[in-house]
Amino acid sequence: MRDLSRNAALQARAQNVIPGGMWGHQNTAALPPFYPQYFARAKGCHLWDVDGNRYVDFVCSWGPIILGHGHEAVEEAARAQAARGDCMNGPGEVMVELAELFVATIAHADWVQFKKNGNDATTSAVTIARAGTGRRKVLVAEGSYHGSAPWCSPSLLGVTAEDRAHIVSFQYNDVESLSRAAERAKGDLAAILVTAFRHDLARDQEMPDPAFAKAARAISEAEDAALIVDDVRAGFRLHPAGSWEPLGVRPDLSTWSKAISNGYALAAVTGNDRFRAPAASVFSTGSFWTASVSMAASLATIRTVLSEDAVGHMTGLGEKLRGGLDGLSRRFGIPIRQTGPVQMPMLLFGDDPDHRKGFAFCAAAISEGVYFHPTHNMFLSAAHTEADIDQALEAAACGFRAVQALHALAAE
Amino acid sequence: MRDLSRNAALQARAQNVIPGGMWGHQNTAALPPFYPQYFARAKGCHLWDVDGNRYVDFVCSWGPIILGHGHEAVEEAARAQAARGDCMNGPGEVMVELAELFVATIAHADWVQFKKNGNDATTSAVTIARAGTGRRKVLVAEGSYHGSAPWCSPSLLGVTAEDRAHIVSFQYNDVESLSRAAERAKGDLAAILVTAFRHDLARDQEMPDPAFAKAARAISEAEDAALIVDDVRAGFRLHPAGSWEPLGVRPDLSTWSKAISNGYALAAVTGNDRFRAPAASVFSTGSFWTASVSMAASLATIRTVLSEDAVGHMTGLGEKLRGGLDGLSRRFGIPIRQTGPVQMPMLLFGDDPDHRKGFAFCAAAISEGVYFHPTHNMFLSAAHTEADIDQALEAAACGFRAVQALHALAAE
Repeated sequence: MRDLSRNAALQARAQNVIPGGMWGHQNTAALPPFYPQYFARAKGCHLWDVDGNRYVDFVCSWGPIILGHGHEAVEEAARAQAARGDCMNGPGEVMVELAELFVATIAHADWVQFKKNGNDATTSAVTIARAGTGRRKVLVAEGSYHGSAPWCSPSLLGVTAEDRAHIVSFQYNDVESLSRAAERAKGDLAAILVTAFRHDLARDQEMPDPAFAKAARAISEAEDAALIVDDVRAGFRLHPAGSWEPLGVRPDLSTWSKAISNGYALAAVTGNDRFRAPAASVFSTGSFWTASVSMAASLATIRTVLSEDAVGHMTGLGEKLRGGLDGLSRRFGIPIRQTGPVQMPMLLFGDDPDHRKGFAFCAAAISEGVYFHPTHNMFLSAAHTEADIDQALEAAACGFRAVQALHALAAE
Repeated sequence: MRDLSRNAALQARAQNVIPGGMWGHQNTAALPPFYPQYFARAKGCHLWDVDGNRYVDFVCSWGPIILGHGHEAVEEAARAQAARGDCMNGPGEVMVELAELFVATIAHADWVQFKKNGNDATTSAVTIARAGTGRRKVLVAEGSYHGSAPWCSPSLLGVTAEDRAHIVSFQYNDVESLSRAAERAKGDLAAILVTAFRHDLARDQEMPDPAFAKAARAISEAEDAALIVDDVRAGFRLHPAGSWEPLGVRPDLSTWSKAISNGYALAAVTGNDRFRAPAASVFSTGSFWTASVSMAASLATIRTVLSEDAVGHMTGLGEKLRGGLDGLSRRFGIPIRQTGPVQMPMLLFGDDPDHRKGFAFCAAAISEGVYFHPTHNMFLSAAHTEADIDQALEAAACGFRAVQALHALAAE
C-alpha cells in the first residue's frame, strides 16, 4: 500500500477551512480509494502527490494539459511574458497575435474574445446569441455539461426555476428530439448549444452523428438562430480547426478553454461575422481577461499542437491504449465498453450500474501508479509515450484482476 | 505629443479579429484621447505602452496590483510554484495554507472556496445563500457592480427578464429603501448583497453609513437571510480583516478577487459556519480553480500586505494625493469632488454631466505620463512613493490647465 499520510493530514486540515474539505469535480470524495487529493509536482505526463508517489496521468488536469505538464516551449513563453508584465491596464501585443492565430486556425472563426473559465465562454456565447437574434430560448442536450453557473449546472441546489426558464432540452444525437425542441421554441429560438461530442459523466461517449450535426445546422439556419458548438472539453484534441470540421458543419459560435493554453487559465468564444456586432455590443468582462501570460502560453501551445501534430500523436497512442484494454478485457473475460475518440478515452464496465467494477479497477490501477478515472472521460497528451501506455496496460491488468476478485466475491 | 503609432497599428489589426477591437472595461474607446490600449511591460507603479511611453499608474490593472507590478516576493513565490506544478489533477499543499491564511485574516470567515473571476465569487455567494435559506430573492443596490454575468451585468443586451426575476433593488446607504426592498421580498429573502462601499461608475463614491451597514445586518438576521459583502474591488485596500470590520458589522458571506494575488487570476468566497454546509453542497467548479501558482502568489501577496502595512502606506499617499488635488483645485478655481477612501481615489469635476472636464483633465495628465481615470475609481498600490504622487500632481496641474482652457472656450 502506498503511503498517503501527508495527503491525509492535508485533507484533515482542509476540513476546517474549506467546506467539505474540497469543492467540485476535483474532489476525491467522488473517486475510488487511494486517489490523492494533493499534488506536489508534475512534469510531462507524470504527477507526484504530496507523499512522493508518482502517477502516469490519464486525466491531464481534466483536459488542460495537452502537451504535458511543464512543457518547455510553453513555460519559456510564459516566463518571458511574465518578466515583462501580465495583468496590466490592458492587453499586450500578444493578444492580437493570439486572436489572429485563433482566426487562422479555427475554420468558422472570424473573431475571438478571451475569458478565464470555460463557463465564461458558454455564458457569453448564449448571451451573444440572444443579443444577435433578439430571442431567448436555448436548446441544450439533456446531461451535457456546459459549466456550473446556475443556468447550466448539473446540480439544482441554489438554482431557481427562472435560471432555466429558457433552456429547452433535447436528446444528443436524436434528430427527432432536436426538431421537437426547436418546435417548442419556435419564434423565440436564440441558439442550439451542443457539446463537440457526447461526453456526459458516467455514460458511454458518442461521436456526433453526421446527420444530427447537419440537422442542428439546418434547424438553426431555418430558424435564424445560432449554432453554438461547445468545444471547451474536446477543443484541439479532435481537430485543430474545430471538432465539427471533419463533419463539414461549421457553427456560428464556439467555446474554448482547457487545452488552449496547456494549463494556464484562459477561455475563448469564437464566432462568425454574423455575430460580430452582437459580440461587440454585449458587455462581458473580467479583471484578468486581458492578462498576457496565459495568452503567451496559449500562443506557444497552439503553435506546438499544430507543428508537432499533437492530435496525430494522441490518436496513435489512444489506439494503442484502447486496443490493449480490449485485449485485456478478452483475456480476463470481463466485458468493457470504450467509447468516443481514442484520445479522450472512456472506459466503462458491462453490468456495472453502481460503478463498483470501475472503482475496483481504478483503485488497483492507481495503487500501481496509473491515474485513470472510473466515470469521467480521460485525456491523453502529446507527452505520453509508448512506454507510458505499456505501463498503463500493466496497471490495467491489475485492475482487471481486482474486478475478477469482485466477481469471485459476488459468486460466493 | 507622444508617439502611439505602434498602439494604433495593433488597434487596427485587432479590429479584424476581435469584435469592436476590444471588449469590456479595458476598452479604451470609453476613455479620453491618448490612452494606449496595449502595454509592453510593467514594474512597480509604472506601466510602459507598446510605443515605449512610461506612465505612473493610478488604475493598478483596475485593482489587482496592490503591491506593484512584478513584486519580487510574489513573483518569486509564483516562479517557485510554477517550477513544481500549477494546474494539476487537484490542488497543491499551498491551497490549504492559503485557506488557513484567509480564515485567520478575514474576521467573519470560517471557511473559503477559491475561483477565478470576481463574478464567479458573487455568483457562488448568491447560490450558496439560496441553497442555505431555501429562498430566492436577493437585494442588490441600484448601480452597484457585481460582475457581467446576466443576473448582474450593467448592460441588459442579451439578458432575459428571468435572469433578474429575483433581484430586488434598493438605494445604497438608504435604510428606508433597503427596508422596503426587504418587505417586498418578505418570506422569500435569500440575501442582501452589497458592495463594501459605494463605488459605482461615474458618480461620487460613498463610504457605507454605519447605520446602513447595521440595518443590513439586522434585516438579514431578522429575515434569516444572508448578508453578503462584495469585497471584490475594495478587499485588502480598506481593512485586511474585511472592509466592514471597522464598522463592527460582519457579513455571513463575502466575495474577493482583484488585490488578493497581485495580478494572478484568483477569486474567493468566504463564509461563516452557518453557510458551511450549503457551500459544501452547491456545485461550483472550474478547470483552473485549484491551480497552485495563483495561490502561491496570493499567499505571498496577503503576507506582504499584512507585514508591510500596505493599507497604511496607501492611505498615507492617498491623503497626500487628495490634499494635493484639492490644493490645485483651489489654485485654479476649478471645483472638484473627491470621494470615498483615499487609497481608492475618485475625482469628478463640478458641473460636468458629460465628463468633458474629466476627459480634458485625464487627456492632459496621460500626455504627461500619469494614468488617471475620468469616471472609474482609481487605485493606489504599496509601490507608489511620495515622488510618484509629486509627479502625479504636476500632471494634474496640466490637467487643471486643460480644464481651464475648456472653461475659456465655453466663455467665448
